[in-house]
Parts: sequence; C-alpha cells; structure tokens
Amino acid sequence: MKTASIVGAGLVGSLWAVYLTKAGYKVQLFERRPDIRKAEISAGKSINLALSTRGWKALDTVGVGDAVREIAIPMSGRIMHDLESNLTYQPYGKEGQAIYSVSRGGVNARMMDIAEATGQAEIFYNEKCVGTDLENGIVFLENSETGKKWEVKSDVVFASDGAFSAVRYNAMQKLDRFNYSQNYIEDGYREILLPANEDGSYKLDKNALHIWPRGRFMLIALPNEDGSFTCTLFMPFNGPNSFKTLTSKEAVDNFFQSTFPDFYTMMPNIADAWEDHPLSSLAIVRCYPWTHGKTALMGDAAHATVPFYGQGMNCGFEDCSVMWELMQKHNEDWPKVFEEYQQLRKPDGDGVQDLSLHNYYVMRDYVGDPKFLLQKKIEAHFSEKHPEKWLPLYSQVTFSHIRYSEAWKTGQKQDAIMKNVMAQFEDIENVWNSEAVENAILAELN
Amino acid sequence: MKTASIVGAGLVGSLWAVYLTKAGYKVQLFERRPDIRKAEISAGKSINLALSTRGWKALDTVGVGDAVREIAIPMSGRIMHDLESNLTYQPYGKEGQAIYSVSRGGVNARMMDIAEATGQAEIFYNEKCVGTDLENGIVFLENSETGKKWEVKSDVVFASDGAFSAVRYNAMQKLDRFNYSQNYIEDGYREILLPANEDGSYKLDKNALHIWPRGRFMLIALPNEDGSFTCTLFMPFNGPNSFKTLTSKEAVDNFFQSTFPDFYTMMPNIADAWEDHPLSSLAIVRCYPWTHGKTALMGDAAHATVPFYGQGMNCGFEDCSVMWELMQKHNEDWPKVFEEYQQLRKPDGDGVQDLSLHNYYVMRDYVGDPKFLLQKKIEAHFSEKHPEKWLPLYSQVTFSHIRYSEAWKTGQKQDAIMKNVMAQFEDIENVWNSEAVENAILAELN
Ligand SMILES: Cc1cc2nc3c(=O)[nH]c(=O)nc-3n(C[C@H](O)[C@H](O)[C@H](O)COP(=O)(O)OP(=O)(O)OC[C@H]3O[C@@H](n4cnc5c(N)ncnc54)[C@H](O)[C@@H]3O)c2cc1C
Ligand SMILES: Cc1cc2nc3c(=O)[nH]c(=O)nc-3n(C[C@H](O)[C@H](O)[C@H](O)COP(=O)(O)OP(=O)(O)OC[C@H]3O[C@@H](n4cnc5c(N)ncnc54)[C@H](O)[C@@H]3O)c2cc1C
Repeated sequence: MKTASIVGAGLVGSLWAVYLTKAGYKVQLFERRPDIRKAEISAGKSINLALSTRGWKALDTVGVGDAVREIAIPMSGRIMHDLESNLTYQPYGKEGQAIYSVSRGGVNARMMDIAEATGQAEIFYNEKCVGTDLENGIVFLENSETGKKWEVKSDVVFASDGAFSAVRYNAMQKLDRFNYSQNYIEDGYREILLPANEDGSYKLDKNALHIWPRGRFMLIALPNEDGSFTCTLFMPFNGPNSFKTLTSKEAVDNFFQSTFPDFYTMMPNIADAWEDHPLSSLAIVRCYPWTHGKTALMGDAAHATVPFYGQGMNCGFEDCSVMWELMQKHNEDWPKVFEEYQQLRKPDGDGVQDLSLHNYYVMRDYVGDPKFLLQKKIEAHFSEKHPEKWLPLYSQVTFSHIRYSEAWKTGQKQDAIMKNVMAQFEDIENVWNSEAVENAILAELN
Repeated sequence: MKTASIVGAGLVGSLWAVYLTKAGYKVQLFERRPDIRKAEISAGKSINLALSTRGWKALDTVGVGDAVREIAIPMSGRIMHDLESNLTYQPYGKEGQAIYSVSRGGVNARMMDIAEATGQAEIFYNEKCVGTDLENGIVFLENSETGKKWEVKSDVVFASDGAFSAVRYNAMQKLDRFNYSQNYIEDGYREILLPANEDGSYKLDKNALHIWPRGRFMLIALPNEDGSFTCTLFMPFNGPNSFKTLTSKEAVDNFFQSTFPDFYTMMPNIADAWEDHPLSSLAIVRCYPWTHGKTALMGDAAHATVPFYGQGMNCGFEDCSVMWELMQKHNEDWPKVFEEYQQLRKPDGDGVQDLSLHNYYVMRDYVGDPKFLLQKKIEAHFSEKHPEKWLPLYSQVTFSHIRYSEAWKTGQKQDAIMKNVMAQFEDIENVWNSEAVENAILAELN
C-alpha cells in the first residue's frame, strides 16, 4: 500500500489527510499537541477564523464541506463601531455572498474524525517532529510524554507543521541555497472572549464581522456558535497606545472605556479577562524551495502570513486542492507533482502575503484617509456599472478562485488607474459618480 | 578578572580577541575547525581577500596593522582582460591609494598569534558551538574529536561564527520577534589557483586586481605572496553559460579557451584543476536584533553579504572598531554598549549589503552598457574638478570611513543626479566633459 506521512495535524494537515486517504494512501499524522478532541486545550492561535470561497472549494472537493457548514456562521458584511458607538454596515460582496466564522478547533476535529473514519489514517499525538530526512522520506519523532524517539519512513512526506515548521527549520533551512525569511510586523494581538448573554443570545449582530477601527490599532470580533464572540485587539507592541502601555488592570480598564465605549458596556470586566489569552506576535514567513526529495511544505509552513486579509487558512486549503489537481495531472509521479506544485504555487504564496501586508498598511495608515475612502466608493460604483470590467480586489481575493498572484497584480493596476483618474478631476469629491469619471476609468482600462 | 567568550576564531573573532585582551579581559575562543596554523586545511571560503581603508583602521587601532602589512600586496587598480586579450587599466582611487590582497589564513594566523601572545586569550579548537544561553552568557560546546560536551559561562559572549552562525541559528532565531532572512543569489563561485612561473615570478601584473568581465559571468584574480594568483569564477548555477554546463573536462577546457584566451594560455591544465575547489553559493543574511542579553553577533554572523564590493571582512573589522569605541563611551556597561551597537550598526550592515548587491547587479547587467560607462566617465571627470562636492561611490566605500548607510544614500542621490543630467543633453556622448554638463550637475547638487 502507498504510504504518506503528515507532520502537523492542524487545519491543513488534517484536511490533506482526507485527500490522501481518498487517493488510497495509508496516512500517518504526527502531531505535537495532545488530541484536541479529548484535551481541554486550545487549538492555538486564533480561536475562530473567517473561511471563504477558496477554503470552501478545497473542503467540497473532498466532500467535507457540509460537515464544516454545520458549524459555520455566515458574516455578510462588516459592522464598524465608532467612538460614539455608532454602527456602519458594509456588505462584503454581492447579495448572498458571505464569509464564514468557523471555530479552529471545531473544523480541525471534524476533519480528524473524517480522516480516521476512512480507516486509512492514523493520528499520533504528543509526537514532536525533531528532524526529517527529506530525500528518503523519514520523519524523526520524539514523544513529549515518554521521551521515546523513533522514526517513520514513507513514500512521501508533507510538512503542515505551521509557521514555525520543524521540518523547515531542522532540515530545509540547512539545504544549500534555501531562501528563507521571517519578518515580524510591529503589531501583536491579544484575544478576548466576549461571552453570550445569560440566555445564550448574542451581544452583537451575529451575521457580521465587527470592527472597531481606531487608526493605529483596532479591535475585531467574530461570532462563535455558543453566542459568544472571539475578539482580537491588534496594536503595536511599543509606542503610545501600545501593548506596552497596557500593563496594569487600571490602564486596560481606562483604555477600553475610552476607546471602545460600546464594547466596554458589554464587557465591563475586560481588565479581569485581559490575561486569559497571551500577547502574540505576527510574522510573514517566506521560503523557497517548498519541496525537496520526498518532502513538501504546505500551509503556513510554506507561506505563513499576517491575518489582515483572513486568507491564511484559505490559502493553505487551496494548497490542498492545487496539490490534488497536480496529483491527477501527473498520475502521482511525485517528483513531477512537487516540481509543478512549488513553481505554480510559490507566486501565490507570495501573493497572499503581499495582499495581507498591503491590507495591514491600509488598515493602519489609510482606513481613515478621506481620499482612500473616496477611491473605494468610486471603485464600488464603477464595478457595479461594469462588473465584467472591474472586480474589486476584496472580491477577487475572497469570493473568487483567481490566483492570489493575479489578484495582487490586478489590484495594483486598479489602484494606479484610480490614482490617475482621481488626479484628473480637481473636484473629484463632487463628480465622483459622474459619467466623466466613469469614462476616464474606461479610457485607462484600455 | 573580566571574562569573555568568542564563538568562531575566524577573521573577526581573532581580531576581536586582540581588542578584548587590550581591555583586560580573559578571553576564550571556541573554534570548530582545527588550528589552521598547524593543520594543512584551508581557512574556508576565498583564499585571499581585498583589505581596504576600514579594515586597516580596525587593525591599526589595536596595533596589529603592521603585522598584516608584512603580508599585504597593494593593488592600485583593476586590469580588465577582454576577449582579444587586450588589457585596460583603471586606477581604484587617487595616486597612492590601493586596496590590498591578503591571505585569509595568513591574517587569521597572525591575529591568533598576537592574541595568544598577550597571555590572556586561549583558543580551543575542534570545539563546535551547539547552543547558547544568550541571557546568561553560556556557550554550549561539543568537541568534534572526542564528542565531549561542555559549557562555558562568561560575562559577555561574542558570536563571530560566520554567515551560518550557530549562535544565531540555535538561539537567536528562536527568539520571539527575531527578524531573519537568508537570500541566495543566482550565482555561485569556484576558485582556481593560477600558479607562479617556475622561477617563482608572477604570471600577471602583481599590483592589480585582474578581471575578465564577460557580461553575465566573470573571472577575477588576486595575487598571493608566493607568486600565484587565486582566481574566482563567478557565474550562474543554471542556464546557458552556467556552472551546470561545465560538468565535463572537455566543457571546462573549451569554455576557458574560448572565453578567457589569455588566462587559458597561462593555465592550459585548467580542466584538471577545476575540481580542486568546490562550487560554492553566495547569500545575503540579514537579521535583527544583533544582541540579546549578554550576547552580540559580529561580522558575517550579523550581516553576511555577497563579495562584489570586497567589503565583508572590512565591515566585520569595522564592527570591532565601532564596538571598541562604544565600550569606551559607555565604560563597558554592556547592556548600553550592545543597545547602541546594534542601533548604530544595523543600518550600516544593511548598507554594505545594499551596496554589494547593487554592485552585483551593476557587474551583471550594466558593466557593458555604454550609457553606464559614460555616466561613470562623467562622474569621474566632475569629481576631479570638484573633489569636495563629489566623492565617487567606490571611494566612499573603499577609501573612507563614511558610514556604509550614508555612502549608499549618497550613491543613490548621485545616481539620480546623473540620470537627470544625462537626460537633459541629447548629444551627451559629445558634450560629456563640457561646462554645460558640469553646470547642470552643480545645479542639481544645490
Ligand atoms: C490571529 C490570527 C487570525 C487568523 N485569522 C484567519 C482567518 O480569519 N482566516 C484564515 O483563512 N486564516 C486566518 N489565520 C491564519 C491561519 O490561522 C493559518 O493560516 C492556519 O492555521 C494554517 O494552518 P496550518 O495547518 O498550515 O498550520 P497550523 O494551524 O499552525 O497547524 C500546524 C500544526 O502543526 C503542529 N506542529 C507544529 N510543530 C510540530 C512538530 N514539530 N511536530 C509535530 N507537529 C507540529 C501544531 O501543533 C499544529 O497542530 C489567522 C492567523 C492568526 C494568527
Ligand atoms: C568568495 C568570497 C570572497 C570574498 N572577498 C572578500 C574581500 O575581498 N574583501 C572583504 O572584505 N571580504 C570578502 N569576503 C567576505 C569575508 O570572507 C567575510 O566577510 C569574512 O570572512 C567574515 O569574517 P567572520 O570572522 O565574521 O566569519 P568567518 O570568516 O566565516 O569565520 C567564522 C569562524 O567561525 C567558525 N565557526 C562556524 N561555526 C562555528 C561553530 N558552530 N562553533 C565554533 N566555531 C564556528 C568557522 O570555522 C570560522 O572560523 C569574501 C567572501 C567570499 C565568500
């Protein structure tokens, strides 16, 4: 029987296991943590995530979409909360389009269940990968409870062990001519659980992603199935209004009361809950090659990104559907599959990172800029009139299967067009929805 | 007595040991290799290097300059060898200015001798650093001959263990928010020893750096004391005219005969000598922070670069003189010294890398471009007339102590000025040394 090893049974590893069982592989997954389905542990990082079109496709291709749909909450737009507690709603896409809030642990557990139920996949917990023989497909393991060291050889190895991949660090990074970078941004994040009302109902509109944009920092909230919201505060580590200034209960209390008044009303005990989740950092990790010998990196191990486009998991899931297509195309001739996988997919890994980083800067530096908001308004207006000529960048990324690298290129082109057009009209604020502006855009497009 | 550990007794480590003994430290150096003064081994990487003004200053500050002068060969300019074996000479700087060819092993050995002679420095060979407790100043070692593991604690630790620093990889890279990148360029290099004539005399002019520029690849030669030259072929790993195409003796022979005819005449047995030195890769390594707790990175461990400006060692030596000045300034208050060292020096590490990479592209893409050569000619002409207004970039980097970061900025400014000025004159080829062009540059400078 064909055998495969997967290092890391997180979101991507557990989905990829299902794919491989479907292709008839005997799959062994090695996961550093205990079984999240049994243990009272968090699945790490953000507790819930936004799942969108690319992710759904990868789930549906292998028939696990419906299992995830059962626990997915649609969010059809964002609701912005200003300093005076006023709300503004912005739909994410067209009527009927939405992104979905899903629990990391919930999705992960369902995919583990499905993989195991095939009878072809076995998950080994508390098994830390400590090294890899990339060329011979050998994974070196150490059990964190017994300390026992052992190794497993298989036909093919997939490293989906996350942003700080042990396979990448211990083996790939030692290869000659392996390009690698890890770049932290100035901001970190801390999660906060906003509980449900006593009767289990939601404290905020459930079918939206909530944002409290405050210039250099922001709070967001995504709904959970139990009526609670998982909120995340993104802000710089250092400087004025930074995590460094929020070190006492009093400071936290004052900060929330003055900066997020409506949130504070819903959660006056925020200062007590402040330390429930750790302060975490955010990095972009790029590398190349993604494959060597019998081993391939997938998901965050290949292209971890900052979460400002909500695409990290979606991109990792898309890795699975791409790898799957290439398996068919090359009839499981792995050297060929791996070579095309990395050549095809690396630009899209870079693309999703460029897009995410761009959105970080947009949120950080432009979201309050009237020029920028006007530009978005004109784009939306034009796109509505000429949907076949202009798909807004957000929709390309979130609601399409256009390659990330393509979306990023088109997005930059669109941006340049808009800057040109807006510079042509002195009174653009007044004529933004005029035919003249429309024609100017059409002219630039040709 | 104050104690210091140095990991890596290469060029920077052995020089820094001399500095520390001068400051009254008991110094222990841990070097992975055997003693190069006893063993018949190469000191790794390039066999000789170009030493210039920054390097000399760092050597002289601690009184070891004269010991190195004894083995240094001045190169006052470059001699270009074209396809027809014609030679062109370009002086590097003004009358009397030169860069110096020195043997890596020779410089290293002399500095080891001097450090040991103080009675305060001890060098441990075959001791591989396998980890570091950055905060407590503990270096973990493993003897490569006996396998014995031990550890050493000292007041302060310096990691000068090169581009693939074990301290950086095993300890720094695991710190939260440590930024890191290793980027390989498309080119690799292979060294070739061009022996002396039978009577021990040089086969080429000894007081020059020889270059055979051939567009996408080039051969260079630096003199050794024994009459030989160490030559280095830089070329892409892959593609037409790449190392990949030079895999048979016949291919090597043909390539040298047709591409470097005068070199081939001097060394018709090139194909036999081809494998004497390995094919090696070239990377830029950037990281930050450079210090943590009691530990600081110096030299290539902090800022390895590609060799196209001949500044890697010089920059590492300059790290020593900068660290030394800060030791005096802060009275050896190491936390303060380290903080200012990294803040001050990081931009210059980036600067030397930007400069080196720029020169790689220049050599690769522009060195044959008539526009580019004309620009350099105009710059040289202008600089001669207005030396106080325009110091050519090469001189800033090689013959001055201007910070690398400043030189890089000034260089970019000069480049922009030249591009502007040249665009103003349609017949620039004819009027390049005219007063009009001179005045245009002067106008741009204001
Ligand atoms: C704050 C935040 C918010 C985010 N929001 C979104 C979002 O809204 N939408 C979205 O699409 N993405 C989002 N992401 C990105 C998303 O979390 C990641 O892209 C996704 O988790 C990647 O999945 P993965 O399986 O590749 O890695 P992971 O989910 O990190 O899984 C890696 C697995 O490998 C295991 N492992 C690690 N090391 C070893 C080892 N040595 N041996 C064995 N096992 C090991 C880990 O325990 C883990 O189970 C967000 C990320 C963050 C940080
Ligand atoms: C082809 C080429 C040409 C070059 N030409 C020039 C030039 O002309 N001019 C110039 O200024 N620079 C030049 N350079 C750059 C120069 O070689 C480096 O900048 C310089 O060697 C850096 O010195 P260092 O002491 O920091 O590192 P290294 O010289 O690399 O020394 C590091 C030392 O640490 C030891 N070590 C490594 N790991 C461990 C460990 N785990 N434990 C203990 N010890 C360890 C190594 O054995 C070595 O002795 C060139 C480089 C190359 C590759």
